[in-house]
Amino acid sequence: MGCFKAFSNFLFWYETPKVVHIRSKKVGILGRFLQLCVLSYIVGYVMVYNKGYQEFANVESAVVTKVKGVAFTNTNKNIPEIYRRIWDTSDLIVPPSENDAFFITTNIIITPNQTRGACSEDPDVYGALCDSPQNCIRGQSLPIGNGAMTGRCIPSDANSSVNVCEIFAWCPIEQDIFPLGTDRPLLEETADFTVLIKNFIEFPTFGKTFRRRNIMKDANKTYLQSCHYNQERDPFCPVFRIEDIVSFAGENFTQLAIRGGVIVISIDWNCNLDLDFLEFCKPIYSFRRADDPNTNIAPGWNFRHANYHEENRRTLVKSYGIRFVIEVRGQGRKFNILPTMLNIGSGLALLGVTTVVCDFIILYFTKKRMFYKGVKYLLVDGEDPERAPLQTEAGMTTYGSN
Amino acid sequence: MGCFKAFSNFLFWYETPKVVHIRSKKVGILGRFLQLCVLSYIVGYVMVYNKGYQEFANVESAVVTKVKGVAFTNTNKNIPEIYRRIWDTSDLIVPPSENDAFFITTNIIITPNQTRGACSEDPDVYGALCDSPQNCIRGQSLPIGNGAMTGRCIPSDANSSVNVCEIFAWCPIEQDIFPLGTDRPLLEETADFTVLIKNFIEFPTFGKTFRRRNIMKDANKTYLQSCHYNQERDPFCPVFRIEDIVSFAGENFTQLAIRGGVIVISIDWNCNLDLDFLEFCKPIYSFRRADDPNTNIAPGWNFRHANYHEENRRTLVKSYGIRFVIEVRGQGRKFNILPTMLNIGSGLALLGVTTVVCDFIILYFTKKRMFYKGVKYLLVDGEDPERAPLQTEAGMTTYGSN
Amino acid sequence: MGCFKAFSNFLFWYETPKVVHIRSKKVGILGRFLQLCVLSYIVGYVMVYNKGYQEFANVESAVVTKVKGVAFTNTNKNIPEIYRRIWDTSDLIVPPSENDAFFITTNIIITPNQTRGACSEDPDVYGALCDSPQNCIRGQSLPIGNGAMTGRCIPSDANSSVNVCEIFAWCPIEQDIFPLGTDRPLLEETADFTVLIKNFIEFPTFGKTFRRRNIMKDANKTYLQSCHYNQERDPFCPVFRIEDIVSFAGENFTQLAIRGGVIVISIDWNCNLDLDFLEFCKPIYSFRRADDPNTNIAPGWNFRHANYHEENRRTLVKSYGIRFVIEVRGQGRKFNILPTMLNIGSGLALLGVTTVVCDFIILYFTKKRMFYKGVKYLLVDGEDPERAPLQTEAGMTTYGSN
Repeated sequence: MGCFKAFSNFLFWYETPKVVHIRSKKVGILGRFLQLCVLSYIVGYVMVYNKGYQEFANVESAVVTKVKGVAFTNTNKNIPEIYRRIWDTSDLIVPPSENDAFFITTNIIITPNQTRGACSEDPDVYGALCDSPQNCIRGQSLPIGNGAMTGRCIPSDANSSVNVCEIFAWCPIEQDIFPLGTDRPLLEETADFTVLIKNFIEFPTFGKTFRRRNIMKDANKTYLQSCHYNQERDPFCPVFRIEDIVSFAGENFTQLAIRGGVIVISIDWNCNLDLDFLEFCKPIYSFRRADDPNTNIAPGWNFRHANYHEENRRTLVKSYGIRFVIEVRGQGRKFNILPTMLNIGSGLALLGVTTVVCDFIILYFTKKRMFYKGVKYLLVDGEDPERAPLQTEAGMTTYGSN
Repeated sequence: MGCFKAFSNFLFWYETPKVVHIRSKKVGILGRFLQLCVLSYIVGYVMVYNKGYQEFANVESAVVTKVKGVAFTNTNKNIPEIYRRIWDTSDLIVPPSENDAFFITTNIIITPNQTRGACSEDPDVYGALCDSPQNCIRGQSLPIGNGAMTGRCIPSDANSSVNVCEIFAWCPIEQDIFPLGTDRPLLEETADFTVLIKNFIEFPTFGKTFRRRNIMKDANKTYLQSCHYNQERDPFCPVFRIEDIVSFAGENFTQLAIRGGVIVISIDWNCNLDLDFLEFCKPIYSFRRADDPNTNIAPGWNFRHANYHEENRRTLVKSYGIRFVIEVRGQGRKFNILPTMLNIGSGLALLGVTTVVCDFIILYFTKKRMFYKGVKYLLVDGEDPERAPLQTEAGMTTYGSN
Repeated sequence: MGCFKAFSNFLFWYETPKVVHIRSKKVGILGRFLQLCVLSYIVGYVMVYNKGYQEFANVESAVVTKVKGVAFTNTNKNIPEIYRRIWDTSDLIVPPSENDAFFITTNIIITPNQTRGACSEDPDVYGALCDSPQNCIRGQSLPIGNGAMTGRCIPSDANSSVNVCEIFAWCPIEQDIFPLGTDRPLLEETADFTVLIKNFIEFPTFGKTFRRRNIMKDANKTYLQSCHYNQERDPFCPVFRIEDIVSFAGENFTQLAIRGGVIVISIDWNCNLDLDFLEFCKPIYSFRRADDPNTNIAPGWNFRHANYHEENRRTLVKSYGIRFVIEVRGQGRKFNILPTMLNIGSGLALLGVTTVVCDFIILYFTKKRMFYKGVKYLLVDGEDPERAPLQTEAGMTTYGSN
């Protein structure tokens, strides 16, 4: 019974803070100004700029790439015999398929028909030079050498004027010389290669309807076979010229092609799913070089791979080229009541803070601070309640006094 | 001394807002109701639904896959001679090892023993047809051609009734024809291939103890060799039949296998680490097709790769197939006092907001608003404090008046 | 006009809550203490520990790796003839190039010159053994078999004492035997291989200036060719010995090398961009084994790949080895006014909460609670305003009474 009364009391009594209403131009304006700041922060930044009324979810994506083109190097007479040939994508794209990336060979060093055996170490290898077999400990291999020493000291095949240790290795040893020297890549024609990037995205958080790809719905086959991506002219064509990509990334293709490098192709999908999906959710491509051209060790990007014609006979290929890494980023945004409520709530809570700041100012930094203290504060002595009420600083008597 | 007094004053004075306690059924219930809303939001959404009392950390993972199976195509007499053979995983999984992904060849076009030389361009290539050598500019290559033109115009090998430009290329040119036509894949038997997916996860944020794998601790070798994953019957078996995966993703294997595609296998680890780890932290698999079957250019997934039998002799393989991408997602949650405090705090702050809303209503939209204004507000004239106190709207005299 | 007046009223009136100022040691100290807790939480945790005054952005990264070394296995006489050879990186790194990962073969099983044909199934395959052709259904293949059965039952090549089904397969069938047995890997010398990890990072959110790599600016070529990473001695050398990495991950190289495994190399870039970038933003390397050595099925990491010497002749290689996965993590932090404001604001809002807690205590759990109620609350009857003001619990008359 008493319990019920307590509850009804609790239920039917409304609590609201007593508020002192001060008429004062200065203070009023100050207070309103601070509130305005907070309000504009909430509305402007939290709501509009940060989309506080929307729920966010990351994009999920799959990428499929297809490179097209052929390079023909017979025309140039400076090119060594072995490099005068036709190159198609199967020759130049290694590995043939990668996840969200592809590599195009732009410069190459081929060492055909290596077999396991004994031959002279590369004179450039530190420690390869010798004057007597003592320098070449059998079975040991040099730090960055190409094989294990046989223990013999023989004239170098590469440069017969010097003696080097003989090694067990894949012979002949690779001669690390660019076919066209260091100022032109062998496969400059790869500049004209094109890559078709098919990017499929979805926002599973918001349901099955939000799936699309980077090919516009009005694109027909002929268009896709002829178009080339261009930031201004054709920003939604999924076919990219290699040279274009490189220059969009702010690099010079010929320079980059000599020693290779890493280019990142970013596809951004920042979509407001409250608008028409297919109409307004479109990819934005950006390009940047990821590696550092000025590194002082092993600049660029290259790797060796071999074709094993027989168990004991291979062709060693050192491929320099451009690795393209495709990263798909972005977020989908959709209206949701919960974040909206949360942001409004914490915004209002923040509004209360302005009073704290404003009080601090008027209670300590204004001429009338005594007066304000007097009206804002009600002083009570908790030590002995029976005592007469205290005087306020403003010299006015407080509650209960008369 | 005075400084000390000021400090003791500051320390021994407690400030609490003066509160007006109004007995009113309507208003009381309104206020309580609003508070209830906020409370249920805090408890229900922030705490329970969003696990506001727990700290979150993403899962770290490593994936190892192993595909098993053999396909045998001698049985079918419609199959061209060259395609009648045994295929094992080394033939069909290209590249042999990938990070968090694997590719299974389901349809294939083989062009054996290509050599670099001169032969007739594929008539289907746009611009390959010619009536005179003038149409074929030596050294130039067609946009999507297979090589560089020699300058001669010769009858086509593929279709002798037409003349095409002769090209320097890997000859013979690939004939882009499916061994079993466009309604059946050559390697339909790959449907029965199985893949073992080993997924190792951990939550380093929460210490070394939280490491596990997707193989249950009670799984023995015989079970793992015989079981197949099935959402209902066997949701924790790490061995998947290829056809099953495809159908779980809502696709028809035979259809998909003809031109290939991309299937994403998601492994979700959303674990409450406050519960028993091995017991309750279990993977949930989901499957979806990532690429778009209805794209109007180069549908599906295929790529070319070559086996170089000699420097100048290769077998070109065009592989159509299914690329499986494995994505491991999920978060670990563990009780942590700090987020708990933070959420409770901001929740209470939010509670204060209800009063703002409620005041707004009773002060502007109730019959008794004048009365409420009178009791809630204390009007003071900050311009000339000496003046007599102001009248409140409620017609009652305010503080100090008597 | 009235509208204008209303606005000026709104503008020139300042609202501030009426505050009861109670002099009481106990209560005062309690209140201050609670405030102190919240303050220390805001300052200590939100601001200092969680860097509440800074904006965060994830690092963007590109990784380039280069493995160096040669292994020579002629020295050991226990090694079967075929495995006595020189191995260079092109032989041991498969695939030759990967994204953010590389694989080093540490143990290997080679089956040279396989051709497609008919031979006896591996007796270890479940179901391979037979006493009559009835056991071998033509065209069918065993679950984990190597080919499709011919229908004949013949003596096994591997072990002539038993009869097994003949199969169409790549013959001869691989014999799954380690060259050096199960307690030593063939390619133990790979322990001395080194890998150069070039990691380029940037924080695009904060502008172009924040780009760097994991090679220190004062590192010269000779240093980079000679140095080896070591947590204590040389924490910024980008060259790692394979054996070192494995032992840093807490594993024994020889043990790991036999069956292979997965090692994760984490590079952490947690940078305070308010400090000098090149000076203080440095990588921290950590190493861990990702796979589970105690798994009860297919432990370690291995895969098969083949070199096709001819269309119908290949060398099958089963590579056991260590897959190194490089993950680049980390965040850049930079001062930003907005998060700072936000955190201060919500902090102050949180301060208000202390009063709620404190009031709760003094109004319900202190001897003087009646008195506190009396001074804090102003009771008004909203039901009939005309009625005389109510008595407060403290027995004091409230506002307006006299």
